[in-house]
Amino acid sequence: MTIGSTHFNHVALIGAGLIGGSLARVIRREQLASHVTAYSRRAETRHRIKELNFADAVVDDIATAVSNADLVVVSVPVKASGAVAEAMGPHLMPGTIVTDTGSVKQAVIEAMAPHLPSQVHFVPGHPIAGTENTGPDAGFDTLFEGRWCVLTPPDGTDEIAVSTVANMWKRAGSMVDQMSAIHHDMVLAITSHIPHLLAFNIVGTVTELEEQLKLEVIKYSAGGFRDFTRIAASDPEMWRDIFIENKDAVLEMLGRFSEDLASLQRAIRREDADGLEAKFTQTQNIRRDVIDAKQE
Amino acid sequence: MTIGSTHFNHVALIGAGLIGGSLARVIRREQLASHVTAYSRRAETRHRIKELNFADAVVDDIATAVSNADLVVVSVPVKASGAVAEAMGPHLMPGTIVTDTGSVKQAVIEAMAPHLPSQVHFVPGHPIAGTENTGPDAGFDTLFEGRWCVLTPPDGTDEIAVSTVANMWKRAGSMVDQMSAIHHDMVLAITSHIPHLLAFNIVGTVTELEEQLKLEVIKYSAGGFRDFTRIAASDPEMWRDIFIENKDAVLEMLGRFSEDLASLQRAIRREDADGLEAKFTQTQNIRRDVIDAKQE
Repeated sequence: MTIGSTHFNHVALIGAGLIGGSLARVIRREQLASHVTAYSRRAETRHRIKELNFADAVVDDIATAVSNADLVVVSVPVKASGAVAEAMGPHLMPGTIVTDTGSVKQAVIEAMAPHLPSQVHFVPGHPIAGTENTGPDAGFDTLFEGRWCVLTPPDGTDEIAVSTVANMWKRAGSMVDQMSAIHHDMVLAITSHIPHLLAFNIVGTVTELEEQLKLEVIKYSAGGFRDFTRIAASDPEMWRDIFIENKDAVLEMLGRFSEDLASLQRAIRREDADGLEAKFTQTQNIRRDVIDAKQE
Repeated sequence: MTIGSTHFNHVALIGAGLIGGSLARVIRREQLASHVTAYSRRAETRHRIKELNFADAVVDDIATAVSNADLVVVSVPVKASGAVAEAMGPHLMPGTIVTDTGSVKQAVIEAMAPHLPSQVHFVPGHPIAGTENTGPDAGFDTLFEGRWCVLTPPDGTDEIAVSTVANMWKRAGSMVDQMSAIHHDMVLAITSHIPHLLAFNIVGTVTELEEQLKLEVIKYSAGGFRDFTRIAASDPEMWRDIFIENKDAVLEMLGRFSEDLASLQRAIRREDADGLEAKFTQTQNIRRDVIDAKQE
């Protein structure tokens, strides 16, 4: 299947917030489907989706949404993905492709796969894109452009289904990569989850400072702390779920981080200037690699 | 003394890299002095200062630099400030104002004050401004514009000397604040030093990952890790000194941070969803305060 040939008869979007709503706009722009049905749990959200008019139908029932779909895209909070799979499982047509957009993959597979019929092709995915905003209004059709989308199909997944989902993301402007779910979760733990945890944590530490000191920290936040407050402004509910759903990888990486931090702390207490400088010099190489990887 | 009236006969800049070189450009633009002498330890740097022509004289000897100065600005690595004060002490005229630009204040005061004659006015300062670059070429005359400059004069410091230094920074476009050195060091530890330590540390943790995982972390660095690599690209030598010179405040704040992190780690291990969400929601208020403080 070439990129150009991707076309679906009926796409069902389970969840149409920032991610699902952005994908809906891409599907319409690229004419990837004859019909798009959006499902949302909340009446208010369904109302906004109708007003924004990025889907052909908006329904309040998962069974109705998926019953004629040849592609189902699940974009709900990670914690809700198991219940969604359970609700749609009995209503999926044989041959339907099911994909998702969750930030954590192993936990999503464990929650969803048992509820999906064997003739359905499940291709778990994670578009690494987002903003600080949520909801259908926050979506836009260039959200995925130039960003990575990682697919984590379990061994034995139908290859045509995988390349169909890959093609959809390429049409959204993404670069698509494939790896195991466990590997994905480890990479994301260190690139995204731990940085967010550190940001939430230092902002939390400041929250508990004496009032006068806190005011001054806010006043002089330009020196590095400000970058952390930006990261820590992310959706609390989403991050709560990510840390719990990716618990194993997060705790593993946090363990390594904390050991390293204890070692730096020891070097500072002992005024080990050479040790500190060696450590700080070493980190500059990674910075160069990140720039070379064109992530800047 | 009004802002407009600030004028020096002879300013000596001890160190003329990013900070000293930028201040030199401000002094020339604003015509704050009749004569500016720059001292640098390294022949290569002196050569560049002459070529850049932002000082009237460039000397290789601290005694010569300061002997006729009514203002001396010390902008050298924090660790070198004691030796600089010792070298210039005997050559300072009575009534001369000595200020510095170090990122740490209590340690600088302890290192410099004992070497300064009693008739010299010592006004320690910290312009909270900088870039990732160093050296006289890196300086520019708008570096301090719109940024805070904190003065930390010990009790009993001559008030005219303090306001003279304050006026100089205001002419550079800075907002000037005054607090105790110990208080300054605590505020900077949490707004700047700990964020840098965390950034150095997580980049260090990544440095020690298995090769394949490291490559993927670099590839997918957009999710938060990238911001940390930027912070961790700062000058290793300067940061080594800052952590050691501000050891007490850094260890105090790092202790609080680590306790809070251990508590988040525990909440993740126990899947305490409510506790995590409460913590993450709390941090959003600080973000709003930072935006309100016009630091964005």
